[in-house]
Amino acid sequence: MSSSTSDLVALATGAVLALSTGALAQSAPLSAQDSDPRVMGWMQGFPPPADKLITQPDSNYFSFPKLRWSVCHLREFLPTEEISRGLGAPVPLNYPSPAEFARLSREIDALTFMPIDGTEPMTWEDSLYANYTDGMLILHKGQVVYERYFGCLEEDGKHAIMSMTKSITGLLGEILVAEGVLDDAALVRDVIPEIGDSAFATATVRQVMDMTTGVQYSENYSDPNADIWLYSRAASPLPKPADYTGPDGYWEYLQQVKPEGNHGDAFHYKTINSDMLGWMISRVTGKSVTDLASERLWSRIGAEQDAYQTVDGKGVPFAGGGVTAGLRDLGRLGQLMLDGGEINGQRLFPKEVVDTIAAGGDPSKFAGFPTIPNGSYTSQWWVFHNDHGAYAARGVHGQTIYVDPTAQMVLVRLASFPQAQNGFIDPTSLPAYQAVAEYLMAR
Amino acid sequence: MSSSTSDLVALATGAVLALSTGALAQSAPLSAQDSDPRVMGWMQGFPPPADKLITQPDSNYFSFPKLRWSVCHLREFLPTEEISRGLGAPVPLNYPSPAEFARLSREIDALTFMPIDGTEPMTWEDSLYANYTDGMLILHKGQVVYERYFGCLEEDGKHAIMSMTKSITGLLGEILVAEGVLDDAALVRDVIPEIGDSAFATATVRQVMDMTTGVQYSENYSDPNADIWLYSRAASPLPKPADYTGPDGYWEYLQQVKPEGNHGDAFHYKTINSDMLGWMISRVTGKSVTDLASERLWSRIGAEQDAYQTVDGKGVPFAGGGVTAGLRDLGRLGQLMLDGGEINGQRLFPKEVVDTIAAGGDPSKFAGFPTIPNGSYTSQWWVFHNDHGAYAARGVHGQTIYVDPTAQMVLVRLASFPQAQNGFIDPTSLPAYQAVAEYLMAR
Repeated sequence: MSSSTSDLVALATGAVLALSTGALAQSAPLSAQDSDPRVMGWMQGFPPPADKLITQPDSNYFSFPKLRWSVCHLREFLPTEEISRGLGAPVPLNYPSPAEFARLSREIDALTFMPIDGTEPMTWEDSLYANYTDGMLILHKGQVVYERYFGCLEEDGKHAIMSMTKSITGLLGEILVAEGVLDDAALVRDVIPEIGDSAFATATVRQVMDMTTGVQYSENYSDPNADIWLYSRAASPLPKPADYTGPDGYWEYLQQVKPEGNHGDAFHYKTINSDMLGWMISRVTGKSVTDLASERLWSRIGAEQDAYQTVDGKGVPFAGGGVTAGLRDLGRLGQLMLDGGEINGQRLFPKEVVDTIAAGGDPSKFAGFPTIPNGSYTSQWWVFHNDHGAYAARGVHGQTIYVDPTAQMVLVRLASFPQAQNGFIDPTSLPAYQAVAEYLMAR
Repeated sequence: MSSSTSDLVALATGAVLALSTGALAQSAPLSAQDSDPRVMGWMQGFPPPADKLITQPDSNYFSFPKLRWSVCHLREFLPTEEISRGLGAPVPLNYPSPAEFARLSREIDALTFMPIDGTEPMTWEDSLYANYTDGMLILHKGQVVYERYFGCLEEDGKHAIMSMTKSITGLLGEILVAEGVLDDAALVRDVIPEIGDSAFATATVRQVMDMTTGVQYSENYSDPNADIWLYSRAASPLPKPADYTGPDGYWEYLQQVKPEGNHGDAFHYKTINSDMLGWMISRVTGKSVTDLASERLWSRIGAEQDAYQTVDGKGVPFAGGGVTAGLRDLGRLGQLMLDGGEINGQRLFPKEVVDTIAAGGDPSKFAGFPTIPNGSYTSQWWVFHNDHGAYAARGVHGQTIYVDPTAQMVLVRLASFPQAQNGFIDPTSLPAYQAVAEYLMAR
């Protein structure tokens, strides 16, 4: 059992916060510039020197600063399944003239904002480095107004999107609900009878989608039997140790989840809900979530790259965190949301799908995320309930697709921030997004 | 250590012949129709029943009949690296009208030929089933005249090409020789000083390219220390056992190869030559063979799909057998060869590259392949020295790109024949190709 494979699942849950914080408290991490994987020299040379190698068996490949290389190279460590773009020509994104694009870039770089709890204003450009940004794309009224690449990411590269995967799973689920294929009032056991006496059995599909289930999923690192480690071991695609007797794969794990609290009482951010949703999606459609994401999204948004998704030892995609994709294709996905299910003159799903997500849930059930004080979580999307009606897909280490319907802005950031939890990154991100939105509205 | 991962390398070398033959001698294998993975039900259902699961840790996923599913799904078992097609629009292949295409299909299906050592003629269509064909594409004068899919393969799918990988590596090597970047008269130790006292050290680059090195690589299965098993263990991307002390990765293995015979004396089909060539290519270009294949081939032939390549535990691509690709993209590659390095109005490399390969080597040094009586092996391509001047990329279980310059025909077959060695498949393949070539020449 490789600890690094376990870490991937742990990281997708945002669960390694305590560990990361502890390590960072010792000393300030390298800056974005100093930890740039090209500067660090990771995997350069044929072969690279031993101290520049990043391998899955031998090293903790998903910890900072190696993380800054590995977020662009997950398929080189793990088995994966393709999310195909199909065989047709990509539909290019819409750009202003080069001169206008450069002017917009300069003006956006110079924007200033006050970080949450900050005392000094920060420029937009400085925030990109503060946040260890690997890629930043901003669309306004369907036109690209800003696009930059850093670190391991290039225009034709791909980046792990971590828990933004959940929002793709949730979007697929919401589409199936709107089409009447998945009944969100049904109980999980009605969809998956073999869920048995798992705590999930008596939750509704909607509670799973919104993560208001009452299910046990402990993240106490000092306990080797904590659920996070059991889940990681079940999910690992590596051969199980000879003496392993636990669940094999995501779905066997879900069959033995214990209850904790009552379904429907409150939002608890627990990745196992996303995989439970993924299983139900596959059951009612007869397709893997990768094939469905290809059929409903990637092959129809004019994508220019295939995406891919990590799988467990039985080929089940990690619906809670396994996707890697290109920056511009994620921009297409955000634009599809902003435009209520339409893209390139085609309607891919009913507008009510986006309306349901954007409306959000009950903020009174939502707590524990100080940088999102009035938020909610609906269909695996984060809803800010702010003046602009913004909502987002979010993943650890700074991944986001941020949709601002009022400003008609879609912003995608891919990043490799040293710490996992977005609570550390939001102070120099969310006010920056607001500043760009206001700039674009005044354009 | 998973035996299945080892098998992949073993199969790519054509080395499991003895084992497969033994097993098959017990009883006739299932027919192509009966072993169709959709008929077998492999991996159907969410989850599939236990007896329909194909997993890397638990089962021999690369043996017939599971092989018939796994050849289309290697990335779901193993870490891989992308061979990117780039971001542009694919260049569609040229087709006749649908009516003309259907007429050609009917006529080709009805062609008959006499199998090698056969007594009864066989139709072309029957040969597709006899050979467990998954995909067949034929281009004549640059136009697709025949295209069919079977088993696990579909138009938008991909298939393991096994040792045809070697021919991609060899083509890249020959391009670098023509450009003066790689000196084929140099000794390996001049290119890779740290090859040390490996038997490869004193071979020339050309001897490696043509597999006329005198290197030891035993395939005695009853000996657990046979080189084939040592290589497989070195190459496995899975974590090494705690007590493992052997070489780690393809390149460390190459550093400890022992001599056997004299360099230049004779052709010996040994996969380690291909990986030695891959290492030299990466050293002189500063690029992995995947990146170079993307830069020189996949991004420039109008490909419609990315390809991918399996890697060892250090991220080194398997230059001797790791590539998976789409049928039509392999057709584009064959057409590029037929047209001497030009495609879609662009010259990708000097014509002498193809001339060198097509001219072949010295047939007197070539032996051991009864179905290719006058053949030779040059730059990792098989040359038939027949009336049509045909040459081919070939991989176990029936993979081929067959180029017939006289008939201006390119034929690509992807297959999952129960036995590994093409010697079993050639009798119902090579005369069939000749029959199609003659039909097309009379067209």
